[in-house]
Amino acid sequence: MLEVLILKLYDLPASPNARRVRIFLAEKGLEIPMVPVNMMTGENRTEDYLKKNSLGRMPLLELDDGTCISESMAICRYFEEAHPNPSLMGNGSLESATIEMWQRRMEFEFILPIISIFRHTADMWKDRFVQISEVAEQERIAVKARMEWLDKELSGKQFIAGGDYSVADITAQCAFVMAKAALGLRIPEELTNLSDWWARVSTRPTARA
Amino acid sequence: MLEVLILKLYDLPASPNARRVRIFLAEKGLEIPMVPVNMMTGENRTEDYLKKNSLGRMPLLELDDGTCISESMAICRYFEEAHPNPSLMGNGSLESATIEMWQRRMEFEFILPIISIFRHTADMWKDRFVQISEVAEQERIAVKARMEWLDKELSGKQFIAGGDYSVADITAQCAFVMAKAALGLRIPEELTNLSDWWARVSTRPTARA
Repeated sequence: MLEVLILKLYDLPASPNARRVRIFLAEKGLEIPMVPVNMMTGENRTEDYLKKNSLGRMPLLELDDGTCISESMAICRYFEEAHPNPSLMGNGSLESATIEMWQRRMEFEFILPIISIFRHTADMWKDRFVQISEVAEQERIAVKARMEWLDKELSGKQFIAGGDYSVADITAQCAFVMAKAALGLRIPEELTNLSDWWARVSTRPTARA
Repeated sequence: MLEVLILKLYDLPASPNARRVRIFLAEKGLEIPMVPVNMMTGENRTEDYLKKNSLGRMPLLELDDGTCISESMAICRYFEEAHPNPSLMGNGSLESATIEMWQRRMEFEFILPIISIFRHTADMWKDRFVQISEVAEQERIAVKARMEWLDKELSGKQFIAGGDYSVADITAQCAFVMAKAALGLRIPEELTNLSDWWARVSTRPTARA
């Protein structure tokens, strides 16, 4: 079997999903050539790009034989299997399942509604998407309630999944980066467990990958 | 180390997420005691249940030491690692990543919007959720467009991820079961690749698990 040698990562620098992959790679100590894709000029809707990902989304991993993998967590899974150390998705059935549970909770309770608020309110989405302001309002309420929930869940824990730093932390980090930068939604100081966790993860050397 | 012997699955029979786990277990040839949870009478909001899953959702796997795993795909991951054969989540980095990519596409393009249409329109959600009918309308349009996309993607393929039957097929199956049963949204006959795939998966002995 041929070893895959040349990889390329099609990147959307401001996207929380692309950032998840960049932090994941940095934590693994891997460097992959990056190809930034400009969504505003439609580079992701060209015939050539749509052949790589028919949904026109980033991030996207291209292997040297032309095989393409999209979806941030699928790309992370690729690197987790190919470069298991340090483990970010867990070892054994219980740890793997626990990390996957927390990864999904962070995705569904934070990343998805935060992206949705942005799409329903940002100027750049006005002509690309039917914006419904009430959706953004409801999701803003939900995200605030979920921060309180996560604060309680973090009681006595260093990291989201309860053990070491994992992909669940990466997902949550990227959600909160976007919440602050794009929506002005910050972690309230009185949520001390969540604030302490944020101080812990946002000062990691990989946090700005 | 103690071997985990007694497992229990808290089930919501009509939920597409709970069905994903039931089909997954049936494909693995595993039988787990099921505990149906009645959402309508608030069984999932009792103090006892919220200790098992603070988000009050089903399905939920409880191990004999009281450890609880929620999130359908995390529960499937638990069984995939503990009982690898037959493989439903892939072996090796490329196959695992490809199946995860397709599983997520089926989840984001179908299961999530289909559940959302239901929540925004069904009587049972009226008093539990702020229903916005325009969301349901937009998502109905999106799901129909995605069926056309998936039909093209299935050209020349037997199963969603391109190789054998996998968890990606299970996710798509459960989405289409709910679309038909709860929303009256059927796969159009003229989408022949998608219709052929549906005939293939819906006649498997595990399809009604």
